[in-house]
Amino acid sequence: MADPVSLAASCAMPPVLSKSAVAPGEVKRSAHIKMDSYNVGAVAPYQAMPVAGPVITHHKSTALPVVEPHPEMTAEEREAQIAEMIGSYMKKLAERTHHHMGYPYNLDFDYGLLEGLTKYSINNLGDPFIESNYGVHSREFEVGVLNWFARLWEIDEEEYWGYITTCGTEGNLHGILVGRENFPDGVMYASSESHYSVFKAARMYRMEAEKVPTLESGEINYDDLKAALVKNAGKPAILNVNIGTTVKGAVDDLDRVLEVLKEAGYTEDRFYIHCDGALFGMMMPFLSRDAPMVTFRKPIGSVSVSGHKFVGAPVPCGVIITRFKYVMALSSDVEYLNSRDATIMGSRNGHAPVYLWYTLTRKGYDGMRRDVEKCMRNAHVLQQMLESAGIRTMLNELSNTVVFERPKEEAFVRKWQLACEGEIAHVVVMPNITVEKLEEFVADYVQSRARVSIAAAKRVACEAKAAEEDV
Amino acid sequence: MADPVSLAASCAMPPVLSKSAVAPGEVKRSAHIKMDSYNVGAVAPYQAMPVAGPVITHHKSTALPVVEPHPEMTAEEREAQIAEMIGSYMKKLAERTHHHMGYPYNLDFDYGLLEGLTKYSINNLGDPFIESNYGVHSREFEVGVLNWFARLWEIDEEEYWGYITTCGTEGNLHGILVGRENFPDGVMYASSESHYSVFKAARMYRMEAEKVPTLESGEINYDDLKAALVKNAGKPAILNVNIGTTVKGAVDDLDRVLEVLKEAGYTEDRFYIHCDGALFGMMMPFLSRDAPMVTFRKPIGSVSVSGHKFVGAPVPCGVIITRFKYVMALSSDVEYLNSRDATIMGSRNGHAPVYLWYTLTRKGYDGMRRDVEKCMRNAHVLQQMLESAGIRTMLNELSNTVVFERPKEEAFVRKWQLACEGEIAHVVVMPNITVEKLEEFVADYVQSRARVSIAAAKRVACEAKAAEEDV
Repeated sequence: MADPVSLAASCAMPPVLSKSAVAPGEVKRSAHIKMDSYNVGAVAPYQAMPVAGPVITHHKSTALPVVEPHPEMTAEEREAQIAEMIGSYMKKLAERTHHHMGYPYNLDFDYGLLEGLTKYSINNLGDPFIESNYGVHSREFEVGVLNWFARLWEIDEEEYWGYITTCGTEGNLHGILVGRENFPDGVMYASSESHYSVFKAARMYRMEAEKVPTLESGEINYDDLKAALVKNAGKPAILNVNIGTTVKGAVDDLDRVLEVLKEAGYTEDRFYIHCDGALFGMMMPFLSRDAPMVTFRKPIGSVSVSGHKFVGAPVPCGVIITRFKYVMALSSDVEYLNSRDATIMGSRNGHAPVYLWYTLTRKGYDGMRRDVEKCMRNAHVLQQMLESAGIRTMLNELSNTVVFERPKEEAFVRKWQLACEGEIAHVVVMPNITVEKLEEFVADYVQSRARVSIAAAKRVACEAKAAEEDV
Repeated sequence: MADPVSLAASCAMPPVLSKSAVAPGEVKRSAHIKMDSYNVGAVAPYQAMPVAGPVITHHKSTALPVVEPHPEMTAEEREAQIAEMIGSYMKKLAERTHHHMGYPYNLDFDYGLLEGLTKYSINNLGDPFIESNYGVHSREFEVGVLNWFARLWEIDEEEYWGYITTCGTEGNLHGILVGRENFPDGVMYASSESHYSVFKAARMYRMEAEKVPTLESGEINYDDLKAALVKNAGKPAILNVNIGTTVKGAVDDLDRVLEVLKEAGYTEDRFYIHCDGALFGMMMPFLSRDAPMVTFRKPIGSVSVSGHKFVGAPVPCGVIITRFKYVMALSSDVEYLNSRDATIMGSRNGHAPVYLWYTLTRKGYDGMRRDVEKCMRNAHVLQQMLESAGIRTMLNELSNTVVFERPKEEAFVRKWQLACEGEIAHVVVMPNITVEKLEEFVADYVQSRARVSIAAAKRVACEAKAAEEDV
């Protein structure tokens, strides 16, 4: 970065913006951020992931201050300085994009043709199917993309409602809200390896919730689910089914969940199923193997996926598709939303639908299938490479998420932006991850392990020498 | 648009994506969309605005299907066709951006220097102050912008917490959630002219809510507020204070609200105030007149504004600033969010902070003040022009929103993208609205009124002639 601090130091804000002093007894933010970056066990670098430790223990972000024009600097000099700052930021983005393995984001996209779109403030505020008077929108692309997903998950255009969301979390928040509005006294069920937004929703919406244990694979424990359902038999069930968990990429078996519901005595009018398909929900339909398909031909209520994950986009986004009859519980109640708007957010990013439309149109169904196949193939390649190098791994059958022991070197974890939870790390093999990149990664990891081993051996030797001297 | 329909018609989706039939008794979406665009009273073109009529009565969006590659079309032909579709969409965006008056969006921005950012999937997932392992983020810009707003609203950097949101709605959802978590049995109070997301929040969060009537200006009725507070004296109060309502731009007087709370017997440990500053919250600090300032020197809990409104950005976004001590109620409870993430969304748009940082840095404090002054001046110019043309208007003292009778011609409303509610329309005079544009608009409006008047007169004449013939 081009020295923002010295620029900031010389440029005070105008006097009207005086600082208020911290009153005695106030809670200070920085006191809650632990700066110890060496205690690998204490930090949980995968933000927005479940944690078990203290709340805020991680690295503090730096700030790039908004700096006032300097009286001794010409407008040209200032513009040049800003351009330099943006330029070095772009270089950082390029480097960080190159060394990325941990998050399920497809960073391989080319939206060059769409660059001019950032000249416009595109906003699909409100319902995608109802035109707003704000004309700078992209509803035609949005509805086109929604129809594509409706066909993917086999629901008639007349039967579904949905929208392009801000992210996977908004999809989960929406799906669970629709469930609650249809079953106001329903109990929510989700596995303990569900995305944290699922239990966040239950707390936000003041719903009773059951956290169901998982199997070793990360799938929900079907026996425990059944026991919980039987226990609460008097109340309807709102279930979150994971189509690929965040950490292990485990897929809850929808067919078995439906069976368990039946066995526990729940008829179709007494449950609502939301499928959290964050990454894998849009990969699974392209798999040829005998997978428990997610489809609206089964009695599910909603499916959500992220758009920036498998499809890939510069902005986070997602898709939620639900049955129109269910969403009526939200939108028909004018007192509820006080609007015809059944979305969670009011203003909605209008660029995202164009990105999604563009990629789906350019790649086509076959292109998407090829991407899925490549990811599944390369995930196996990575697993085999790691195993052959003596590193133990786990890879679920229906998954492109390769799980292994968390590397000991924090610098290595950060270099490759690995997503970690506790002692586990993972690589999600996305379309932008080539075999060459996997090779580079594994070689680097082996080196890192060697350094850690040598350091450990040296410590032993050092202690032995010290003991010898003491003798 | 370049004929997407004919392209679509010839390109079926692959057979695996077969359609499910609509089961008997299913609810059809299109049956709930009224296509009658002539019944001006029944339609409410300002999506994401309060409505009183039936739920879905507005114009249906068209879809631009995601089309599969055509076997008889070369790759080049296909690319050219897609480029042509995007090209004509861009032309539409340019035209719609030019004719825009109704929404409080500043469409005057130049982010040319930042165009390369769309090459990267920038995501500030989780807390802005805690680094994630995902390296392609813009936290340095985000924290810089948050610090700027903290100074604007006079709260020490150590005392606040906040983040850059998806839109104004997310700011309101967050502020009210923080209020509820601090006062779980609190009753929410907001005026009936509040943004609809405020009551949406109360319903989502299962909070008791009081809708307080307004004065003619659109401000909250302070006497009614007091009566409601006294009625619920046993429970803490969570108040939404409007810093500029959506329709009339009315500003609730924060000082009077604080006085009313005192009179009703509420001490500072028994209320939480969220200020919804959507548009005006960031204009008010720049006004020199004697306005009831929004500042954290007063006992408020949070302030939110939109970023795409006054600052202007290609993507919807917003800012929420709250006291860190209050947000601890969310983030310290690990069981709650099951994460250290106290935001509502998980993944967050990383481009928005760079846009905001760039505009605030380039314009500086003085530039922002000049923009505010220009808007206030031009709002008065518009009011005077309309009044001099015989059109009755309303303009609150602290507002750039000019309210007038809803034009009778729907085509005119749509051409200028006027935001309407019931019989009221408004123009929000933003920095991109010049006096020349106002002149064009008023002349066009006068012509529209003339056409309506002539048509009305003709109907009378026609009826008179028919009556004559009957005689």
